[in-house]
Parts: sequence; structure tokens; C-alpha cells
Amino acid sequence: MTTGNAQPLRITVWNEFVHERRDPLPRELYPDGMHAGFAAAIRAHLAVDVTVRCATLDEPEHGLSESVLRATDVLTWWGHCAHDAVADEVVERVAAHVLAGMGLLVLHSGHYSKLFRRLMGTECSLRWRNEDDRELVWSVNPGHPICEGVPSPFVIAKHEMYGEYFDIPQPDDLVFISSFSGGEVFRSGCCFRRGKGRIFYFSPGDQDYPIYHDANVRRVIANAVRWCAPSSTAHQAPPTGRSDVGWYLRNDAPEETE
Amino acid sequence: MTTGNAQPLRITVWNEFVHERRDPLPRELYPDGMHAGFAAAIRAHLAVDVTVRCATLDEPEHGLSESVLRATDVLTWWGHCAHDAVADEVVERVAAHVLAGMGLLVLHSGHYSKLFRRLMGTECSLRWRNEDDRELVWSVNPGHPICEGVPSPFVIAKHEMYGEYFDIPQPDDLVFISSFSGGEVFRSGCCFRRGKGRIFYFSPGDQDYPIYHDANVRRVIANAVRWCAPSSTAHQAPPTGRSDVGWYLRNDAPEETE
Amino acid sequence: MTTGNAQPLRITVWNEFVHERRDPLPRELYPDGMHAGFAAAIRAHLAVDVTVRCATLDEPEHGLSESVLRATDVLTWWGHCAHDAVADEVVERVAAHVLAGMGLLVLHSGHYSKLFRRLMGTECSLRWRNEDDRELVWSVNPGHPICEGVPSPFVIAKHEMYGEYFDIPQPDDLVFISSFSGGEVFRSGCCFRRGKGRIFYFSPGDQDYPIYHDANVRRVIANAVRWCAPSSTAHQAPPTGRSDVGWYLRNDAPEETE
Amino acid sequence: MTTGNAQPLRITVWNEFVHERRDPLPRELYPDGMHAGFAAAIRAHLAVDVTVRCATLDEPEHGLSESVLRATDVLTWWGHCAHDAVADEVVERVAAHVLAGMGLLVLHSGHYSKLFRRLMGTECSLRWRNEDDRELVWSVNPGHPICEGVPSPFVIAKHEMYGEYFDIPQPDDLVFISSFSGGEVFRSGCCFRRGKGRIFYFSPGDQDYPIYHDANVRRVIANAVRWCAPSSTAHQAPPTGRSDVGWYLRNDAPEETE
Repeated sequence: MTTGNAQPLRITVWNEFVHERRDPLPRELYPDGMHAGFAAAIRAHLAVDVTVRCATLDEPEHGLSESVLRATDVLTWWGHCAHDAVADEVVERVAAHVLAGMGLLVLHSGHYSKLFRRLMGTECSLRWRNEDDRELVWSVNPGHPICEGVPSPFVIAKHEMYGEYFDIPQPDDLVFISSFSGGEVFRSGCCFRRGKGRIFYFSPGDQDYPIYHDANVRRVIANAVRWCAPSSTAHQAPPTGRSDVGWYLRNDAPEETE
Repeated sequence: MTTGNAQPLRITVWNEFVHERRDPLPRELYPDGMHAGFAAAIRAHLAVDVTVRCATLDEPEHGLSESVLRATDVLTWWGHCAHDAVADEVVERVAAHVLAGMGLLVLHSGHYSKLFRRLMGTECSLRWRNEDDRELVWSVNPGHPICEGVPSPFVIAKHEMYGEYFDIPQPDDLVFISSFSGGEVFRSGCCFRRGKGRIFYFSPGDQDYPIYHDANVRRVIANAVRWCAPSSTAHQAPPTGRSDVGWYLRNDAPEETE
Repeated sequence: MTTGNAQPLRITVWNEFVHERRDPLPRELYPDGMHAGFAAAIRAHLAVDVTVRCATLDEPEHGLSESVLRATDVLTWWGHCAHDAVADEVVERVAAHVLAGMGLLVLHSGHYSKLFRRLMGTECSLRWRNEDDRELVWSVNPGHPICEGVPSPFVIAKHEMYGEYFDIPQPDDLVFISSFSGGEVFRSGCCFRRGKGRIFYFSPGDQDYPIYHDANVRRVIANAVRWCAPSSTAHQAPPTGRSDVGWYLRNDAPEETE
Repeated sequence: MTTGNAQPLRITVWNEFVHERRDPLPRELYPDGMHAGFAAAIRAHLAVDVTVRCATLDEPEHGLSESVLRATDVLTWWGHCAHDAVADEVVERVAAHVLAGMGLLVLHSGHYSKLFRRLMGTECSLRWRNEDDRELVWSVNPGHPICEGVPSPFVIAKHEMYGEYFDIPQPDDLVFISSFSGGEVFRSGCCFRRGKGRIFYFSPGDQDYPIYHDANVRRVIANAVRWCAPSSTAHQAPPTGRSDVGWYLRNDAPEETE
């Protein structure tokens, strides 16, 4: 949520971009990479100005230098087969920015990314099956801004099944639960607050399905990006350390009458 | 959870007891009333001593006098067609005991009871369908004592569908999510803490199905009764009201060395 | 949080307005009623257009008719000595609108209002003392939009002490904790989601102190009003009731490619 | 909470044990090491059988081998000046056991341990001051078993101040809030569930104060150890991975009538 600042919301879309260059089906579905689709969805749906940049695994520092992160309000993350290839140093840098206020949207197999596991502190493991299950995405939090403009349920005709037990901390806010034709359930839309940052995990998004062309999925991504946005453009970790008695009295004028 | 007090855990099983005396199918499934089944399940599974009494709608004060409640550690509640017939005065009395520490287990259609709605503050509405859906009850909190000894998922071959959006506050702890053959999902096992009391809502339990003969359902009920049990046998609301400066210094000896 | 809708945010400020007309000190501090101060603070700080109306206890239906509520995005509530005078019928009407999406900001002694207790389901009791304690309001959720532009802690030089145990459900989000010179603590800024509505309870605000002239308190009130605002201008309770198998397939076209 | 299993609860008390051998004041207060005090408090207050072993930093593998952890129901952790000396390999091993069910009680400066930060995913930073503040420990969850037998507030006449903002995820259950004579507040008793494990963070406990001789502090530690105890003696991570359609039907007999 922005403060009404005239500055556009600054989004960085991070994508592993391995499958779309290596495997026939993803390449056909996402010829410019999945990140192109995210960027388009975000621009189309947000009611505020946005600037969107993309970054991929194979760039220097995976495209996530300190200056890029400092100029990012919300980072989106999609990865699947190359989690281990992400440098620990970059993971720590990104995590620090999230704790200092940068928003983070983690998609699908990003549940196993070093970054998401680093921030959750749990295994983030789950059950899965790739056999064209029908997925129904149900809202269990109908007033939540991430649900805005999206029916409940919305139908994903064919998708990979993700099933419980999903080893995450209990979400601060549970927004979606999915069911699959095989009977499994999954907490598919989960909000977390860590430090000053907001994190949203959204499970739909296997690279072998045209998920990111789905209107409802694109709407959720745009809503989530806006929800993740920090109040302040500067990522500033909260102050800590040794504090004198009455330190707070030096800064504050208690009775500013208006 | 008891304190290890040698006293047995004192359970009161409250049942509307209308359907089993009026409608053929419930009468056949539960000839002694559903409460007889709950009592048996509770006695069979708890590893601590229990005393179980039953109370029904048609008794004076619905069997829930002040002295009965004072002698109850955990109350279980099943109602369906006669929620309106429960006296407001009794509802307030029971709610006060819950806030003062008495545990409460609410089952199935009890979601629409005056008592549950009074304690939740929301509508507690939901979707439903009575067409022999298969229900799968999944644990999303595998370390929780209510899940102990129960597989995930466990299968209820035929049951009434309850579907989201279930208008409850976000549970303090979400334990079970159910899926139904029709594709719906439902937060079927929900823990709440209100005042000093513990509340567990568990959705399986339509009167036209042999649900309360199911071993897994009976095990969950017993686990939940134990989880709901207060630490202290006396229901005592926390102190409130006007408080002098340093009132707490009169009672406490700060440095009791051992 | 608005959707970027060009419509102004519609606020209704409800005030008991008894003390300011009856007692010397409140009358001196708030000659036009506390509601005048709230309205001014809200207009001054919100970065979006607002329209603010006021309503008081002594108006017909306490100024909270069905049409007023339908035209309200966020309702603020201050009451103290006349909670019992609020008609049950009006309380139910307001509660229904909150569950259907209207935001609610409850201030100070409003913790004992029929409305807040109805929505919380608990006693909402607390300890108190009116002896000019110094209050420090600390943020425990520094990224939260309600904290925006407000130092942590901010100082209220003299105020009524509110102390734990505050009998509320655990907040969905705890934003502020206050300490008092007498040593007491209090969860003074609490977010709750109920149905589709957002509720914020904020404790500073005794009528014998110039609290609502304090710049930080006014900023929090404005931030909270914006946070409480619903995504949609229409208050619509979520659908419930009997649902056919596959009912959701009649409305949804699964693969809307863009 | 035990299952009623006749086996004693198996506790491992881990202590850095550097200050008590190096610095005069801690050595005088805790001549046998702080772990001796914890062990005594735990044995004295638990109403069930316990076996307590101790382990310290300077032992091989810091006394936390795979076989020790497999035989531990609850681990307590106190560290301060040598967090960096704890081997990453041991941290990962302990974290895995917590996620698989082992309970964890983290004390005082343990907030900065690799283990606690690994499990929280946040900085766990805070404000502090070592100038003999008076601490008041207030319960905000009076029905919680960790509060049993402990007054609210209880007084710690002189202690190190820990102050917000404490960079932790919002606790699943907030049990205690402390105030300090300097006016600071701190969420001093925090419950977290991670995987199948239970974690309790309790802030009182600076090595230069006789905190662990305090009767209330000792009672809380014993209550917390019992609360952290897993339902099952075996630490078993939940199953994950590829799952066939209907895999769960092979194991479950749906209608086991009793």
C-alpha cells in the first residue's frame, strides 16, 4: 500500500528463466520468459503508476545488486530447478531488504527457494503430483485486498497438485485454500509479515501449464504486488542497541497542539 | 490440559436431542442420542480419569445451571434445528464460564448456535449440501495434540458438505482443513482462545450419517476435550477495575530465592 | 485501503457527546465535541479525498440509519458513560455492516461499548486509574501503515492508565503497546478482521485530557481510518446456503487468456 | 504436554557456560553454572517425571549429537557471548529436530543465537540497557498453561532492560509483556509453532542478576518446558514428495465402527 506518494511503485520481477530456454513446453507457453507475463499483468491491473524491471539468475549477482534492491518496492520471485545456484550472499542481501521493508511475492516452486526458506525458518516442504488435476482456488478472507476482483472459487482447469502438509509457519493471514481433483488441499495464498516487510506466497504457477495467462491468476499477482508495497520508499531497519534511560524524550515534543 | 491434579476431568456433553427422537435415520443411528456416543468416545480415549454427564435442551435450564457449569471443565455442544429454543440467559451464563476458563467443544451445526455466534462475534455462516460427498480431513498442524493418533487425511466416505466462506474470525490455530468430492474446502478444525477459555470447533457430525461411530472422529473428539481442559478447576475471571499505583507490590515478594 | 476509486472515502464519526455538554473539563477541551476534532484530524492527514459526517447518541437512531451506514466506508466510535443507551437494534445494524465490509475504529472507553463487545465476543474489561500517568505508546509492528509518520515511542505526558489483562481475543495484528508511569502495560493498538470488515481499537482518548489535540494521536487516527477502509464501496456479505455440486462452474470461464 | 505415556519427560539443558567460569559476578551467582539452576527448577515444579541432562558449548558437538537430540523431548537454550562459536552443523541438526517435534525453550540473550534466528527468519534484534531497571512481567494470556501458578504481574526488582522493537515474527501466542522502570516495553513471553515443534522465548535472565533463583521465573521455566513437550516421543518430520492419486485410500479404513 503506497502512501499516495506520486512516485510510481517500483517492481523487480525475478525469474530463474531456465525452463523457458531449455524445455519445449515452457518455451512454447512463455517464449519471452514468465517474467514478461508477470510484468504485463502487473502493469495492466495496478491502479497506480508502476515501473517494472526484470532480473534473472544468469545475470551478475542474479540482477539483484544493492542498488537494484534499494530501488525496489516489491520483488517477485519464481524459481524451480536451480535454487542451489542462487548465491548465499545475494539471498542474505535480499532477506535484509525484506526485513527493512521491501515487499516480496513468492510464486509456486519458489517455496523451496533459499530466500523463502531463509525467511520462514521451516522446511517449506509439501506433497505434489503433476497429472493435470483441476484446481479450485477458494478465498477464506473475502475482504482482503488480494481477493479484490477475483471470484471465489476460481477454476484452474489443469494444474500441478500441491498438497498439505505445507511446512510453513502459520500464516499471519490465510487468504486462499486450494482443492484438487485428487482430493488434496493446500494453503495456496499466505500473507506473512517479517520485520517491516510483507511477504505473500501464492502457489499457482507450474511452468508446464499456461497459468500465468489466466486472468484470475494475473489479477491476484497484481493485487498481491500492491498489498506487499511498503509504506515508505526507504528500506530502513528499525533501530536497536544500547539505549539510555529516557532516550526517547530527546526527540519528541509531547503536546503538539493543532 | 490438566495440571496433573488427581481430580478427574469433568465433562458435560450437551445435545439438542431432537432429531434422534423425531427423525427415523438419526434415531436408528443414535438410539440413545448422540450424547451417548460422545460420552463413550471420551471415556475410551482419554488417558486421564474423566467423569461425563449429559444434558439436553428439554431439561430445566437445558441442564446447564450455574452449579453444573461450575462443576464442568469442558462442555461439548451439538445442536441443529432448535438453536432459537436455547434461552438467552443460559447462553450468557455458559459464555461467562467459558471466558472464565471452562473449555468448549462445538460440533458441526453448532456453528449456528447462539453460544458459538455469541463468542465469535461473526455470522458463522457457510455453504452446505447434503448429497453424500466424500470428505477428507487433512491436518495442517501435525504437531498439535488434537491430531494425535489420527491419520492425515482421514476419510469420511459419506457426509454433508460444509464449504467456505465460513464466517468466523481467523482461528488462533487452524488444525484441520476438509475437502469434499464436490471440490469445496472448509476449515474443519479450528482452535480459539477467548478470555481464559479454550474453544475447538470441529465440523464433522451430521445427524443423518454414522459420523460419531467413526474411530477417527471419536479420537479427535477425545483429543479436543483434553486440549480444551483448563489449567485450573476454578473458573475465575481475571481481575479488572480501578487499580492504585503500585497495587501489585502489596502481594508479591520479588526475590524469593530457592 | 481504497481501490484507487475516484470516490472520496466516506467517514462517519460517532460520538456519545454527553461529557462535552455536561462536564466542565471536557467542555473546555472540546467545545464543539470530540467529533469535531476527529473530523479535522482525518481531513488534515489523509492523502485521499474524504467526506466526513458526524453522528451522536441523541439523534434519531443515534444518527446511524441504514442509509447512513450504506454510505459509510469507515465508522469511528467514542462512548463512555452511556453505552447502555445505545439501542440494541442499532448495534446489530452496525455490526452487520462491519461484517459486510464497513471499517470500524473504536477509541478508548469504546472498549465497553455494546458494539465492540458484540464483535469481540469477550468482556473487553481492563484495569484503569485516572491519576495523570505518563503514557508511552510503542510500536511493535514498525512496517504497519497505521504506524506511518509516528515516532516510536510517542509520549502522552498525562493520561488515564489502561492496564492488562485486557479481555479481548488475541489481535490479528498487534500494532501498539503502551506503558504507564505506574508500570502497567496495555495492548493499545489492535487490528481485527471480522467477516469482510476491518476493526482497529486504539486506547488513548480520555475526555479529561487534551489527547485528541495531540499531533501523534491525530496522525494515528487518520492512518487507522485509511487502513480500515474496505476495498469495495458496497457492503456485501459473502454468499452462503445450499450449494449444488459444481455451482461455481456456471459462472467462471477458466482460461481467459490475455 | 505429554500423552500420559509413563516415560519421563526428557530435558536437555544447554548452556554456553562461559560467563560463570570467566566473570566474577555470574560465577558468584551461579557457581555450578546456570544450567544447574534450570535443572533444579524443572525437577522441582513438574508434576510428571523428568530426566534432565546438561550440555555445554565446550563439549564435543556442544553436547548435542544426533543421539542426544533423538533422546530429548525439550531442549532449553541459554547463550550470550559466544553465539558465533556454535557450529552451523549443530545448529542445522537441532533445527531439524525442532521441526520434527522436539520442543525448544530459548532464554534471554538466546534471542541472538544462530538457532533462534535460524528458526525465526528475522533479525531478533532489540534495545537494551544494563542499569538495574525494575521489570514487571505481565500476563496477557491468563488461561495459558505457561502462566499457571505465577502472579500477574510478578516483579523482578533489578534486571537488564530489553525493549521493543523486538524483530521477531508476530508470536503465535503472546503470553507475557514486560515493562521496565525506564518506560520501555517488551514482548517477554512468546510462543511459536514451527513444523511439529513448539518454541517458547522467555526474556528474563541476565547473567549478572540472580534471576534464575527467582521463584516465579523458575515456575515459568518449568511450565514452559511442559508446554513445549511434544505429543510423541519420536521426532518425525511429516511426509512429503510425489503422491499418487488416492494414495491415502490404501492406508485408511473409513468406517471403523466402535
